[in-house]
Amino acid sequence: MKTELEQVLPGEIEARSFEIITEELGGKEIEEKYAPVIKRVIHTTADFDYAENLAFSPGVLEIALEALRKGACIVTDTQMAKAGINKKALQSLGIEIFNFMADEDVAEAAKKNGTTRAVACIDKAAALNRPVIFAVGNAPTALIRIYELVQEGKLKPELIIGAPVGFVNVVQSKEMILELSVPYIVAKGRKGGSNVAAAIVNALLYLIWER
Amino acid sequence: MKTELEQVLPGEIEARSFEIITEELGGKEIEEKYAPVIKRVIHTTADFDYAENLAFSPGVLEIALEALRKGACIVTDTQMAKAGINKKALQSLGIEIFNFMADEDVAEAAKKNGTTRAVACIDKAAALNRPVIFAVGNAPTALIRIYELVQEGKLKPELIIGAPVGFVNVVQSKEMILELSVPYIVAKGRKGGSNVAAAIVNALLYLIWER
Repeated sequence: MKTELEQVLPGEIEARSFEIITEELGGKEIEEKYAPVIKRVIHTTADFDYAENLAFSPGVLEIALEALRKGACIVTDTQMAKAGINKKALQSLGIEIFNFMADEDVAEAAKKNGTTRAVACIDKAAALNRPVIFAVGNAPTALIRIYELVQEGKLKPELIIGAPVGFVNVVQSKEMILELSVPYIVAKGRKGGSNVAAAIVNALLYLIWER
Repeated sequence: MKTELEQVLPGEIEARSFEIITEELGGKEIEEKYAPVIKRVIHTTADFDYAENLAFSPGVLEIALEALRKGACIVTDTQMAKAGINKKALQSLGIEIFNFMADEDVAEAAKKNGTTRAVACIDKAAALNRPVIFAVGNAPTALIRIYELVQEGKLKPELIIGAPVGFVNVVQSKEMILELSVPYIVAKGRKGGSNVAAAIVNALLYLIWER
């Protein structure tokens, strides 16, 4: 074997990764209180752009953690984001998570209304009528629908995690969320993804979950 | 609403995204035959680094598609990568997909042998004794285990998709795969992820699946 491996025990890989991230962030100024979120997203993507891409609404961490403690559920726009969120943490904290993308009624509503299924998922989540944290890692249309419902006074999310990725209306959808006076964590620009949305949720969970 | 949205029908968002990617790749030379894979990874990440990061072993696409047609199964190292792979395509093509991360016997084997669970997953996959395509989007330890088993003559994968992400032994694990004379698609460097591994699998599926 020509390649030299770093000797790190399985249980220490994550801690070592965070050390490296902290070292390499070096001069880059990130707000210390947001470091657990920012570093976890960098850990998930190996992309230091996120040191600058993440936008936090005032007091968002306190608000989000309080919502999680008080029984807010999490709604994702992809099965992949749902799969990426730590199940042990959710169970231990008693937090429910939903993704409606594969639901029959969502497919039907989307077809009937000529929308994406992601939009129909948001409508279904709004109809839950309970405190919701949205984790959007894929569909800008989902984020736009959340914006519309908030503007119409029909939805008041505890937190919007806005991290869709891509090229069509992605940047715009995030700018729309930044206009709202609701708690948000947004990955500005084109970058994001289900992995990023899940990483942000996990970072929040790890702030209140004793591993 | 201050933000101006591009008017694109739900069914046309993906095609429009690929148009934009093609435009913006512009001068960057990518091999035309690999374009469906490269562009899909960029579509998933909005990260044009992948125009340069992806390494393909000789003839890998033909080999991979033939393996998929002949009933190779797919084994992922995360639930997230599994969740990101198109289920309709898999069903329609009759391709099985496995992820063993949550299995009891995997947790036990990992504990007993002092390895990561990802390593135990690879051992379990090797014991399937059937043609396997590995899609590794998270654990360098999984990739290193595949390397060891191939070197020992105990495993002969149809294809290794090597796209773990991160900071500890990630770059090295990918370099090890590049040494092997087995079919591979590798995301060189630190970047990668479950989303990237899933995107590569999806790109392969879409080359043989009639949507």
